Amino acid sequence: MSVYRFQTVNQIISGENSLQSLGEHLYTVNRDIESALVVTQPFCLELDFIDTIKNQLQARGIKVDVVTDILPEPTVSNIERVFQDICNEKYDVLIGIGGGSVLDATKILSVLKTNSQSIRDMLGTDLVESSGIPTVLIPTTSGTGSEVTPNAIVTIPDEELKVGIVSRFLLPKLVILDPVLTLGLPKPITAATGMDAFTHSLESFISNKANPMSDMFALESIRLISSSIVDAYQNGADIAAREKMLLGSMYGGMALTAAGTAAVHALAYPLGGKYGIPHGEANSMLLPHVMEVNMEAITERLSLVAEPMGLTVSGLTPEEAAKQVVAQIVQWTETLNIPQNLKKYGVQEEDLSALAVSASKVKRLLDNNPKTLNLKEIESIYRKLLA
Amino acid sequence: MSVYRFQTVNQIISGENSLQSLGEHLYTVNRDIESALVVTQPFCLELDFIDTIKNQLQARGIKVDVVTDILPEPTVSNIERVFQDICNEKYDVLIGIGGGSVLDATKILSVLKTNSQSIRDMLGTDLVESSGIPTVLIPTTSGTGSEVTPNAIVTIPDEELKVGIVSRFLLPKLVILDPVLTLGLPKPITAATGMDAFTHSLESFISNKANPMSDMFALESIRLISSSIVDAYQNGADIAAREKMLLGSMYGGMALTAAGTAAVHALAYPLGGKYGIPHGEANSMLLPHVMEVNMEAITERLSLVAEPMGLTVSGLTPEEAAKQVVAQIVQWTETLNIPQNLKKYGVQEEDLSALAVSASKVKRLLDNNPKTLNLKEIESIYRKLLA
Ligand SMILES: NC(=O)c1ccc[n+]([C@@H]2O[C@H](COP(=O)([O-])OP(=O)(O)OC[C@H]3O[C@@H](n4cnc5c(N)ncnc54)[C@H](O)[C@@H]3O)[C@@H](O)[C@H]2O)c1
Ligand SMILES: NC(=O)c1ccc[n+]([C@@H]2O[C@H](COP(=O)([O-])OP(=O)(O)OC[C@H]3O[C@@H](n4cnc5c(N)ncnc54)[C@H](O)[C@@H]3O)[C@@H](O)[C@H]2O)c1
Ligand SMILES: [Fe+2]
Ligand SMILES: [Fe+2]
Repeated sequence: MSVYRFQTVNQIISGENSLQSLGEHLYTVNRDIESALVVTQPFCLELDFIDTIKNQLQARGIKVDVVTDILPEPTVSNIERVFQDICNEKYDVLIGIGGGSVLDATKILSVLKTNSQSIRDMLGTDLVESSGIPTVLIPTTSGTGSEVTPNAIVTIPDEELKVGIVSRFLLPKLVILDPVLTLGLPKPITAATGMDAFTHSLESFISNKANPMSDMFALESIRLISSSIVDAYQNGADIAAREKMLLGSMYGGMALTAAGTAAVHALAYPLGGKYGIPHGEANSMLLPHVMEVNMEAITERLSLVAEPMGLTVSGLTPEEAAKQVVAQIVQWTETLNIPQNLKKYGVQEEDLSALAVSASKVKRLLDNNPKTLNLKEIESIYRKLLA
Repeated sequence: MSVYRFQTVNQIISGENSLQSLGEHLYTVNRDIESALVVTQPFCLELDFIDTIKNQLQARGIKVDVVTDILPEPTVSNIERVFQDICNEKYDVLIGIGGGSVLDATKILSVLKTNSQSIRDMLGTDLVESSGIPTVLIPTTSGTGSEVTPNAIVTIPDEELKVGIVSRFLLPKLVILDPVLTLGLPKPITAATGMDAFTHSLESFISNKANPMSDMFALESIRLISSSIVDAYQNGADIAAREKMLLGSMYGGMALTAAGTAAVHALAYPLGGKYGIPHGEANSMLLPHVMEVNMEAITERLSLVAEPMGLTVSGLTPEEAAKQVVAQIVQWTETLNIPQNLKKYGVQEEDLSALAVSASKVKRLLDNNPKTLNLKEIESIYRKLLA
């Protein structure tokens, strides 16, 4: 890896109750903001986060509209419908507050507003034509790291796929990382989104595109998440654990922007696109199995994450340490009660070959995987989740 | 430290020979660049770096001008003079390639071009009125980290001071980190600038404004620099060591942007402003003495940098580990042949009280210092450098 690229956002405000300093830092986005659109989901209204935002903006004379119609894992048509509602309004900033679904939708709305392209025109890498309305992104899950990535993922139901828009124009102008917003995350979402974040970092670390910068973020992310995921799950009110998770998931986003995710994500997308399996859950199910299949190619690298994961591995061979890493991941899926079976989603043996074909098309990510996986190998990974 | 702010650049291209991919990544700055100004010093012309840049730009139909008149540790009038030469030309991008002196000057030229303010109007924090011409910053020293900071430092000879402009508008659009550019750095400059970078990270780590994000960058920077500074000094052609130094100094810039430097830098500025002592040399001289004076307030923190510095401290108390850290710094100044005395610069006993008064005015940085230093303490630190 000789020349590599690192891309990130300009401004991050972090820490407990940092949402309350949104108003104060809004000048870094633009000095003359007259109107703002908040993009979110109903739970944020109920939890008063939207009032916290509105109060600060209105105190500064800014007109605030709110849309709450973004669906989880939004489809193209969901985002297009929301866009129809807002396309005639003028906004100086879009503020997305929610999980990855909301953040991705906010990014897409921002560039839809300024370009004459449709969402489908933008699917792929570097196809967005010009910068969007400036955005502020405020995550409420510790998962996708979407707040710092140039990516937005949409579901295309007729093609049974999830696909990405990748463009530097999707990066926000300001990120707010307030762990208080994640205190109310239900247990299963804490578990699944947390394992998604861990997957970002682990896949970045073993990616063919890993480099010194992505490695730093990946290892620090692994360290933070490993030391807090069980605490955050068992006691959702543990603010210190929530803060580590949020920082860890953001670093995961930085790592994946530089190094890319790999086969776990490639195999997860058809599960989301075809069966609506939440992204974090799909990743968590696949993670240990893909690592086992990759093992021969990544023993050395996997052994290096044992220490940041808090495992005692002194005196062990790399093979033994790498095995402990996978064992710890399996242990987590049990402790965190993450479903380990595709049956409950209606997947059947006869669906596996079509799933494998879909996954094999996610070349952008499979190319990052340290081991080339053929159709048969992909299918047999899925099969493990039917046992 | 509850709420903290992190600020950085959007795009970094890093790695051996990455200068050769400048042209390819220029689209991230702006899609329609017709003319560019390269800001540099004569050594870059001699070393062919400017041809490497020109060839790539001209191949893309971009007109290129070059100014080489930036002086080391530039004064206000030096930068104003260069500005006079270019103020009637239209440029779409400024490309600064050089040490911190050149990078700082490039940042200032960029905002002079678009604002009707003078440099003196901009001195201070957040006083620049609007964004400048986009810049690309390419460091040729592993020192200041200026390529990723919102700061630019100028010398004001009539006030015998060095002062800073701090503004998010000084952040570049693109950074290129190519260790090849630093292979020819003379030994004394490798030593002094390298210790400047180390000082950024160590001061950020002990700063009153230290936070989880600045700590990550500071510790990784300390790890990288500690493992490479002697190698880079003793064998300038050691590309792996040069690469670590360059990454380490950039992380130092990220750390200091988030947490600030402290008393070492505050005491260094009058030495630069009044006696023209190069910034890195001034810092290196002061570093061990300031750490000793700070010791009672930072024992615990200093002990935490022992391990990233590569020191074997298992079984030691924090006091013992912290002492080893200072001892290692002293050892480096010897190995790197960094002058440890102010006499050769003409400083005399009777100058010390005025120096102390000047340093005590650098409140922005002294406020970050974990120990409050009074005039007498500051003066006695300077006195140690006359022994
Ligand atoms: N852009 C990227 O870089 C990137 C990376 C990975 C995944 N993704 C995408 O992000 C989406 C998934 O995002 P996610 O995993 O954050 O899930 P999500 O945004 O879909 O949220 C999951 C559920 O949790 C609820 N929720 C969110 N925050 C809550 C809170 N604080 N309290 C209570 N309920 C809350 C949501 O309403 C939703 O029902 C997928 O579409 C995935 O493909 C994007
Ligand atoms: N903006 C910031 O955040 C920040 C932080 C710290 C210091 N600074 C400022 O930066 C300036 C110091 O910068 P510096 O320490 O990088 O030194 P410098 O830029 O003054 O360079 C030192 C000397 O080395 C030469 N040189 C640089 N690169 C070379 C190379 N590759 N080969 C051969 N010669 C080379 C220069 O021509 C100069 O003579 C000071 O003004 C200082 O106050 C700025
Ligand atoms: Fe993901
Ligand atoms: Fe410095």
